[in-house]
Amino acid sequence: MDLTETQIDSVLAHDGDFLKVHKDHARMPDGSVSSREYITHPGAVAILALLDNGNLVMERQFRYAPRREFVEIPAGKIDKGEDILLTAKRELLEETGYVASEWIHLTSAWPSIGYADERIEYFLAKGLSHQGSQLDEGEFLEVFELGLDEAIDWVRQGKIDDSKTIVGLFWLEKTLKNWAI
Amino acid sequence: MDLTETQIDSVLAHDGDFLKVHKDHARMPDGSVSSREYITHPGAVAILALLDNGNLVMERQFRYAPRREFVEIPAGKIDKGEDILLTAKRELLEETGYVASEWIHLTSAWPSIGYADERIEYFLAKGLSHQGSQLDEGEFLEVFELGLDEAIDWVRQGKIDDSKTIVGLFWLEKTLKNWAI
Repeated sequence: MDLTETQIDSVLAHDGDFLKVHKDHARMPDGSVSSREYITHPGAVAILALLDNGNLVMERQFRYAPRREFVEIPAGKIDKGEDILLTAKRELLEETGYVASEWIHLTSAWPSIGYADERIEYFLAKGLSHQGSQLDEGEFLEVFELGLDEAIDWVRQGKIDDSKTIVGLFWLEKTLKNWAI
Repeated sequence: MDLTETQIDSVLAHDGDFLKVHKDHARMPDGSVSSREYITHPGAVAILALLDNGNLVMERQFRYAPRREFVEIPAGKIDKGEDILLTAKRELLEETGYVASEWIHLTSAWPSIGYADERIEYFLAKGLSHQGSQLDEGEFLEVFELGLDEAIDWVRQGKIDDSKTIVGLFWLEKTLKNWAI
């Protein structure tokens, strides 16, 4: 069955500082026309930063939209035209102060396919050494270490409930225990 | 460290059919003022529908924002004021045609904490029987069965790369193999 929906027209319904809302008409598989409202996003990276002692570098951060703190892996938006590995290196250094000697691209995943074209690129970073963080203006977060098994247990307990972080931990556990890379 | 960001003011910058974009000023932990742009979302449910033969009920669906097909678990938005279990029962029936005799709430997870307040409620549905689907207008999808181990392998291969589905599979595997519920 061909499920493709084909764009007929598109308007930029909201041109925000960061959020660009598009509203299109699209041709459905049965020939009918439907509206499609969605956000375009530059994409992001997320980093499983594995210390030599086996712990992960984690962050505690207040997120304004849901109005609470979350425990997360380091992550950040891709600057326009930026190579994703450079984004990952930049974000890890800015947010946590770490540089890594080994970078492995694990996977890509899509957090919000119902209304955004955002794709998150996951990296495993190893051979970490601390150089000192350089947070962006208006960015506040706390960095701490957490073992993988404890992180998985935090998912079970609901102490980690950020989907980006759960996907990253899933991949890291599989990569270290089940899958060859 | 107190990381709380406190709302100073808020405007509805875009009042779309579905996407509501808000732009606030907020007080940062250091007393400075920053802008925060975000979407309010009614929340959603996602369902691990486990057949008596051990297979999962899965969907193949074209997603307009990323402009491609995805393999997903059944999911849908919560109607305003709707009980989340009713949403789950409604969406499973509408999209796949199945009703379940046993429902277990697994967890909640947040797909896009950087710019949306959406929370997804995950349910495990068992004791399934087929009654016939009733898709919403403008909704097109294909339903099929997939074993859990094969689904996990599809994640490894990148054939499943929807974060909502990966989080659901992670929880289902842990629930069936590692965690008591």
